[in-house]
Amino acid sequence: MQHGGMMSSLSDMSKYATIALQEDDSLARRLSDSGKDIISLTIGDPAAYFKTPKYIIDAYVRALRQRRTSYSNPLGVLELRKAVAERYRRRYGSDFTEDDVMVTQGVSEALMCLNATMINKGDRAVLFSPYFTPYLSYFKLYGGKEILEYCREENAWDIDFESLEADLKKADGNGDRIKYLMITNPSNPTGAVLSESTLRKLVDIANEYDLLLVSDEIYDEIVYNKAKFVSVSQLAKGIPHVILNGASKNYDSTGFRIGFVIIPEKDNLSEAIKNKMKDFGSLRLSANTPAQYALAEGINDTNQHDKAIRVMVKKIEKQVGVVSRQINNSDYMSTVLPQGAFYVFPKINIQDLGIRDDKEFVRKLLEEEQVQVTRGSGFGKVDHVRIVSLAPSGTLSLAIEKMERFCKRHSR
Amino acid sequence: MQHGGMMSSLSDMSKYATIALQEDDSLARRLSDSGKDIISLTIGDPAAYFKTPKYIIDAYVRALRQRRTSYSNPLGVLELRKAVAERYRRRYGSDFTEDDVMVTQGVSEALMCLNATMINKGDRAVLFSPYFTPYLSYFKLYGGKEILEYCREENAWDIDFESLEADLKKADGNGDRIKYLMITNPSNPTGAVLSESTLRKLVDIANEYDLLLVSDEIYDEIVYNKAKFVSVSQLAKGIPHVILNGASKNYDSTGFRIGFVIIPEKDNLSEAIKNKMKDFGSLRLSANTPAQYALAEGINDTNQHDKAIRVMVKKIEKQVGVVSRQINNSDYMSTVLPQGAFYVFPKINIQDLGIRDDKEFVRKLLEEEQVQVTRGSGFGKVDHVRIVSLAPSGTLSLAIEKMERFCKRHSR
Repeated sequence: MQHGGMMSSLSDMSKYATIALQEDDSLARRLSDSGKDIISLTIGDPAAYFKTPKYIIDAYVRALRQRRTSYSNPLGVLELRKAVAERYRRRYGSDFTEDDVMVTQGVSEALMCLNATMINKGDRAVLFSPYFTPYLSYFKLYGGKEILEYCREENAWDIDFESLEADLKKADGNGDRIKYLMITNPSNPTGAVLSESTLRKLVDIANEYDLLLVSDEIYDEIVYNKAKFVSVSQLAKGIPHVILNGASKNYDSTGFRIGFVIIPEKDNLSEAIKNKMKDFGSLRLSANTPAQYALAEGINDTNQHDKAIRVMVKKIEKQVGVVSRQINNSDYMSTVLPQGAFYVFPKINIQDLGIRDDKEFVRKLLEEEQVQVTRGSGFGKVDHVRIVSLAPSGTLSLAIEKMERFCKRHSR
Repeated sequence: MQHGGMMSSLSDMSKYATIALQEDDSLARRLSDSGKDIISLTIGDPAAYFKTPKYIIDAYVRALRQRRTSYSNPLGVLELRKAVAERYRRRYGSDFTEDDVMVTQGVSEALMCLNATMINKGDRAVLFSPYFTPYLSYFKLYGGKEILEYCREENAWDIDFESLEADLKKADGNGDRIKYLMITNPSNPTGAVLSESTLRKLVDIANEYDLLLVSDEIYDEIVYNKAKFVSVSQLAKGIPHVILNGASKNYDSTGFRIGFVIIPEKDNLSEAIKNKMKDFGSLRLSANTPAQYALAEGINDTNQHDKAIRVMVKKIEKQVGVVSRQINNSDYMSTVLPQGAFYVFPKINIQDLGIRDDKEFVRKLLEEEQVQVTRGSGFGKVDHVRIVSLAPSGTLSLAIEKMERFCKRHSR
């Protein structure tokens, strides 16, 4: 018997669960198996290049030896939630407490649950392009219809407020329900750091249009080239906002899978979201328990952390500099100088190379030069690629050389 | 300005993200803070009572010292996926491979992603009551409309096939899309273990009605009272099925948050689900990396594991026996003897006690006797409570004594 479409059985929304990061991995594996050396610059994973600091590993081992291996509080272990609140107080003068902090299994779990908490089919949210793919994927998975604002490369990826205000007025006129406006600062993939004045304007707009402001600040300590990071929590007093952060990047511990959701305000919306996120927390019981104790110490031991992050950021700044300069000396590629995170996101006139699109570009580059990068269209921006600049400078320099050679060979 | 319902901002479906497990925790905390000793029997967490085995902790420490702390394969580290496939081969004669195994952040992440993968609004699935709450919550979160089948307590919680077939015929006649039929074996909360003949009937029905069969086997080694566990993977050759399992219970490592999804078949539906689950995996990058290496060794070292699980199951059998006998000697409570997992799920005629419902029963019991259990209605069954039987026998015995005293005092 064949019943009610059993074999076409996936949900309509599941088509949005996609990410461009690993799409050429099987090709890379084949090339690697056939003896080629691949330079893979696709995953933003500091722990693959910089050893997770020993003092954090030691704390993790202690937690394991003390058998802190049972389920923990669905909101996160108290020590870590306190450490996160204290970290924001120390760095940004915040006055929220551990009660406003929830620990998640990475920022991705936070995104999935936040969208499940808020989004009905047809609801809208403001996202900025280029974007980190999962922002859009998790939003659309729940039926969201994005309002996509385009950051202008010619303006160092700054937000186009004229377009933003026009789109908000229009959506407002249509009676659209705009659930939130989400930013990432510093940005993945562009490396742009939002200025204080830009952030103030965003806060004003959120206030004017009653928008929940969501700010992903997971790279907040990885800032360089004289940029200054300002947290939304410093400016958004009195308006509902959600801060996303985590241990993966600043604490060089991607594989622990620990993220933070901070909801500092006490208004009805903030409390409703906080309570519902707690329900989602209870449904999955807890995040990894010993990793949470490790990161509580990781955050609290500011001496050790400051040393570790200083070394890491210095190296990243140097490496991003090498990549950016080499790209800006190229005849085919150019880039805005990143100010934070560890990505370089150059523009390439791909059609001048007789190559159909960025997807074909990254595949051919991998095949011909064994350099693997991620297509810009995966972040909402064609004619670009994202280059993770965490490998040693020599490797990065060689990769850009190979890209240059590739472009030259294909240019007409 | 007030715009488009901004403050009534939660999604319609998010109301289904609830679980009864922790609802009296703040009362328990208040009582505890005021100096009362609480006996809390609510969370099925072996690692809170039995030390996670040292050989697994040692392996975890080794993985940390070797800095296996970066993101890992979204599907799970190869060593663990191989170990899981090999474990099923060893125990159940299965012939699937690591390519058919995905590692998730606990079974809960598997449930969330599986439902996101499959469920459109209005889609149906067959679930059995009493159920583990998240099965229903994650299904309804995506708009699912359950077909709830009631296991009959008077028949040792066996499935009522007459009712099941009638409901399937009816749904089929209505043209409903039934996406899957999900069982849990051994059962949380009843402790029932499905017999081979029951499983064969379920497989036949899945085959006849083209239903994806989902089997949560997370307690598959925690079986006693002469019960014999049979895995769906042994019987469902040739029909699409999904096996859920994990390290939390059998490997006494709840706080690691490591679950397994196994999709052994190669039919179109199985392949489509496998590919989409992989996309969900990529979106959240990976599960905790060092925990996966630890559990690969946890599973592969069968000598150490067999010793550890034997000791744990022996204790659980004894404790469940103590609780069950004491309950069956009670004037107010009675229970079917569990055959697996570590829960006792007694029936109590709550209204004979002049108490409104099971919610009030568990609250009053906590207030008056400082014993915390979970209301049966949280698992779809009123007039019942769930008692986690992992505490030492003396504690459990005292708790049941207190419950008996409580019932006696309230009985009219």
